[in-house]
Amino acid sequence: MVSVRKIGTTTEEKNKMIEHGEKVIRIKVPYKLASRAFHHQDSVIKVGHHFIGNGSLTAIAGPCCIESREQLFTIAAAVKSAGAKILRGGAFKPRTSPYSFQGMGEEGLKLLREAGDKFDMPVCTELMSTEDFDLVDTYTDIIQIGARNMQNYSLLKKVGQTQKPVLLKRGMSATIEEFLMSAEYIMASGNPNVILCERGIRTFESYTRNTLDLAVVCAIKELSHLPILIDPSHATGRWEMIEPISKAAVAVGCDGLMIEVHHEPENALSDGPQSLKPEKFARLMTNIQRVHFACVETDEIESVAKKHAAI
Amino acid sequence: MVSVRKIGTTTEEKNKMIEHGEKVIRIKVPYKLASRAFHHQDSVIKVGHHFIGNGSLTAIAGPCCIESREQLFTIAAAVKSAGAKILRGGAFKPRTSPYSFQGMGEEGLKLLREAGDKFDMPVCTELMSTEDFDLVDTYTDIIQIGARNMQNYSLLKKVGQTQKPVLLKRGMSATIEEFLMSAEYIMASGNPNVILCERGIRTFESYTRNTLDLAVVCAIKELSHLPILIDPSHATGRWEMIEPISKAAVAVGCDGLMIEVHHEPENALSDGPQSLKPEKFARLMTNIQRVHFACVETDEIESVAKKHAAI
Amino acid sequence: MVSVRKIGTTTEEKNKMIEHGEKVIRIKVPYKLASRAFHHQDSVIKVGHHFIGNGSLTAIAGPCCIESREQLFTIAAAVKSAGAKILRGGAFKPRTSPYSFQGMGEEGLKLLREAGDKFDMPVCTELMSTEDFDLVDTYTDIIQIGARNMQNYSLLKKVGQTQKPVLLKRGMSATIEEFLMSAEYIMASGNPNVILCERGIRTFESYTRNTLDLAVVCAIKELSHLPILIDPSHATGRWEMIEPISKAAVAVGCDGLMIEVHHEPENALSDGPQSLKPEKFARLMTNIQRVHFACVETDEIESVAKKHAAI
Amino acid sequence: MVSVRKIGTTTEEKNKMIEHGEKVIRIKVPYKLASRAFHHQDSVIKVGHHFIGNGSLTAIAGPCCIESREQLFTIAAAVKSAGAKILRGGAFKPRTSPYSFQGMGEEGLKLLREAGDKFDMPVCTELMSTEDFDLVDTYTDIIQIGARNMQNYSLLKKVGQTQKPVLLKRGMSATIEEFLMSAEYIMASGNPNVILCERGIRTFESYTRNTLDLAVVCAIKELSHLPILIDPSHATGRWEMIEPISKAAVAVGCDGLMIEVHHEPENALSDGPQSLKPEKFARLMTNIQRVHFACVETDEIESVAKKHAAI
Repeated sequence: MVSVRKIGTTTEEKNKMIEHGEKVIRIKVPYKLASRAFHHQDSVIKVGHHFIGNGSLTAIAGPCCIESREQLFTIAAAVKSAGAKILRGGAFKPRTSPYSFQGMGEEGLKLLREAGDKFDMPVCTELMSTEDFDLVDTYTDIIQIGARNMQNYSLLKKVGQTQKPVLLKRGMSATIEEFLMSAEYIMASGNPNVILCERGIRTFESYTRNTLDLAVVCAIKELSHLPILIDPSHATGRWEMIEPISKAAVAVGCDGLMIEVHHEPENALSDGPQSLKPEKFARLMTNIQRVHFACVETDEIESVAKKHAAI
Repeated sequence: MVSVRKIGTTTEEKNKMIEHGEKVIRIKVPYKLASRAFHHQDSVIKVGHHFIGNGSLTAIAGPCCIESREQLFTIAAAVKSAGAKILRGGAFKPRTSPYSFQGMGEEGLKLLREAGDKFDMPVCTELMSTEDFDLVDTYTDIIQIGARNMQNYSLLKKVGQTQKPVLLKRGMSATIEEFLMSAEYIMASGNPNVILCERGIRTFESYTRNTLDLAVVCAIKELSHLPILIDPSHATGRWEMIEPISKAAVAVGCDGLMIEVHHEPENALSDGPQSLKPEKFARLMTNIQRVHFACVETDEIESVAKKHAAI
Repeated sequence: MVSVRKIGTTTEEKNKMIEHGEKVIRIKVPYKLASRAFHHQDSVIKVGHHFIGNGSLTAIAGPCCIESREQLFTIAAAVKSAGAKILRGGAFKPRTSPYSFQGMGEEGLKLLREAGDKFDMPVCTELMSTEDFDLVDTYTDIIQIGARNMQNYSLLKKVGQTQKPVLLKRGMSATIEEFLMSAEYIMASGNPNVILCERGIRTFESYTRNTLDLAVVCAIKELSHLPILIDPSHATGRWEMIEPISKAAVAVGCDGLMIEVHHEPENALSDGPQSLKPEKFARLMTNIQRVHFACVETDEIESVAKKHAAI
Repeated sequence: MVSVRKIGTTTEEKNKMIEHGEKVIRIKVPYKLASRAFHHQDSVIKVGHHFIGNGSLTAIAGPCCIESREQLFTIAAAVKSAGAKILRGGAFKPRTSPYSFQGMGEEGLKLLREAGDKFDMPVCTELMSTEDFDLVDTYTDIIQIGARNMQNYSLLKKVGQTQKPVLLKRGMSATIEEFLMSAEYIMASGNPNVILCERGIRTFESYTRNTLDLAVVCAIKELSHLPILIDPSHATGRWEMIEPISKAAVAVGCDGLMIEVHHEPENALSDGPQSLKPEKFARLMTNIQRVHFACVETDEIESVAKKHAAI
């Protein structure tokens, strides 16, 4: 079958029609603020003293779910020591079952703030409802919008009314265009500080929890100026795949990783099977830096080559 | 490949293990209130003077989006006259783009209530945010939770705190189990009046807007006591398919249909291509009744046969 | 997101461009012989004394796999008596595992021919390899190309060199366009007698074996003149769903059904869980006729209405 | 939802049952020869003087389709010089349309052999039909089975009767288990020299031609001893994504890459949009080696670490 190529929104592109086989297609992308066509430079999002999207590799790590002070502080100390820049932890949890643990709520948020302050790490936690906005906003440095809420437009508009960075996860069956349209909702409401995060899409394959679509990183870098992270924990659902998949994510050019870590995965209240132990996370951090370094150098070589030749 | 058969939750089933090829699987379904195992009789949901789930065929019809008094009342008169029992109309619209028409809001809700009263039809409209609950609750008889919010747990808990019927749409990549788990959220919060609605799932096929999964009706009837409707408008995205697909939905045994009707689809502010004109809707209503009648009779024959023989 | 509407190949259509939201698309369908644009009348395929595609409802039934003379003749007698017009039975079986029973081969083909002759039914069996063409061609009236071979182009060209009817199953991840392109392969090789068969596509939903895409019937009727059957057995993988799904398939307008029947499903060498017992098949045949009758009448009413009014 | 973890076939595993949430599942994998449980060491496949699966990185490169002597030899010289070890080129092409160029047939095979001999590279080409086996076998060093034929069991059995290496591509909707079952077909027929190749699966996302499932590399390394390559060309359908996706594939641990190269992609008879120009391929080869080197070192560190500590 003839494949279809979409055309972006630059003026040059708008004025041409791609002839490809028997299909003739002209498409204007429906997002503007999120589009690279109107914002050529990469967006860099400042979080505390840290920058996301400036070419460095950002690791956001921590437990899926905040369970207790001891659990959170143990894990926070470990991920800080391994090089993670931002601490994650869920206080409001979107669980498929109403009978599963739903999170510690405000008590969890307080612990998260305390841990962030103690270990000098900005913190990131999920907001599930507009009603909890003020509460979550009080304690967190990054507001996470989960995959199930990627098209919860009330919530997107709400977080668009602040200037606090928003980490927006791709819905499990969202197209790349829909993903960027949801970012557009936040930006059109006034908040330009959007960090995208791919966490796997739903396919027929059931060996892994989801199917990680790494080409999304290339697509986002072409279509948008926003930074994009990869969440290998939800993408695979299997701790033994986290390190190789993280290396791949770094190699393809993502701006960072979001990884679930637990010191006792077998006792975790959620996502135990996909949580890394601290020592495995530490090794991962060392190893992805090697891959990142190898790729950065190739990009520099490439950058020099571009200056010397028409490619 | 060896197929996997799941086992339900009846006592008898709990105590056996299915041997099927090389796989041995035992599964307890994680929902209780929504499960037929604990509630053998079909649930019948009362809406105004009307009942959903009692063996009759309920048509919910109206515009995708309430656009004006004239538009809504014209369509309401037409669908009432054709036999629709419940009037639908969106006042808060979940649009992929922040630049698309977002609905008339409270003004639309007032028009909907007025139209419902005038034509003596209960009304159904979508709630997108917990913040709008009181407003929507004031005007509507059925609260619709859209596909994008099927796993918006805050919203599910909120509508679980009323006794008003909730029409819960299946998410576009939700499994049947996840669908029932979302119903369980509402029921576990205290509201047993849940009406399920299948509106197509997302697959690789792009000829239709979504892929309608009609086997879900058989599955729900086996697993749950809740009524289930089919929305052929969103399932196909093409008005010319609405009638044949509606006939199929009736034949497979659904409890009703939810159909978008517009007297000027070419000028509709949303979903024009999938909206039926009133005269086509009237013909559809006549034709699905014939199919329903043919199927009800076969079920009666079947029911009699069951009494006379071990099948 | 703006939905995309494809334009067909009639002259009128070729000369217009659909303006739909922000997307402008012009598409010429890449198939010609299979296209309704060049062959307005429905194709009717003659098989023995029987016609497929002439408005009647054709049932092809029999065991998944031919296991023995006794098994085949028992089932053949039953399906004939219930009203099936064509006998199916596999002699070469495409099994996922090399260790599963692969079919009786020529011995099975001989039994099938013998049963067809005895019960005065044309027979249908699967061809898996060009090497077996002469053998299968000797014994069968319809050559079936299975889903896994829908894009086995050598095989398609081979069956295109005969005039014998070919039943072409849709691949489990084939688009409607690819499905018709495979029919085009057969037709371009010289054989116009193609019968299409939908048997479910692969999605994330695992409750059923596949997800039946009934909208394909509407699409095929619009895009092509070829008849299309539905195979509810493979589509669902569950015998208890066969009857309701068959009624739906009839209601949507398919030209017939292909159903697996076994008198001892629990001992079947393949596909036992989806095989109907003869008595259930007999009831199904009665019940789908009622649905078919209800729908034919509605179509006639519609047909008359069309003559009297611009719709 | 509770995720399901499959259990492998080692004796230890056979004797335990995983308790995971509310689901209890026991599964024996249905393949034996392809399973790591019965063959712990990685299989290394010898092709000419080259080895695939021994820890080195193998690049198979060349045009999608052999078009002429000049085209093939130009590309062969370029990919050889850039470090590709094996030359690919299609002589029999599986095209969706019967009206598309179907390949040069035997004339193409002769050119491929000649180019392989001249540039001292083993060659790889696709076999589409059992009837062409002898012809293709005469000229090629690796027999490729395409994605559309992954479950063409006659073809699998045929290539199982030789000892020549077979490159088996994953079907576009094949599960990992089905993929390994198809390898098992070849091995059970007598040929242990199977090289797996992932080329993307079909999902709802249409920005890329397919969705590359890189976790399959981790899964295959766990479940099987067979080497696995990645084909980024078909996985993405976009030349600009080939290099970043290739880096990711190397980082995740694949045994090599299969890449389409064309010196004039705009004039290519097939797959132009996904073909790399020779200079871009050369840069890719340099850059993936850097990533490979970075990952090999991390694996060595890991290997040493394992000896010193319980991890």
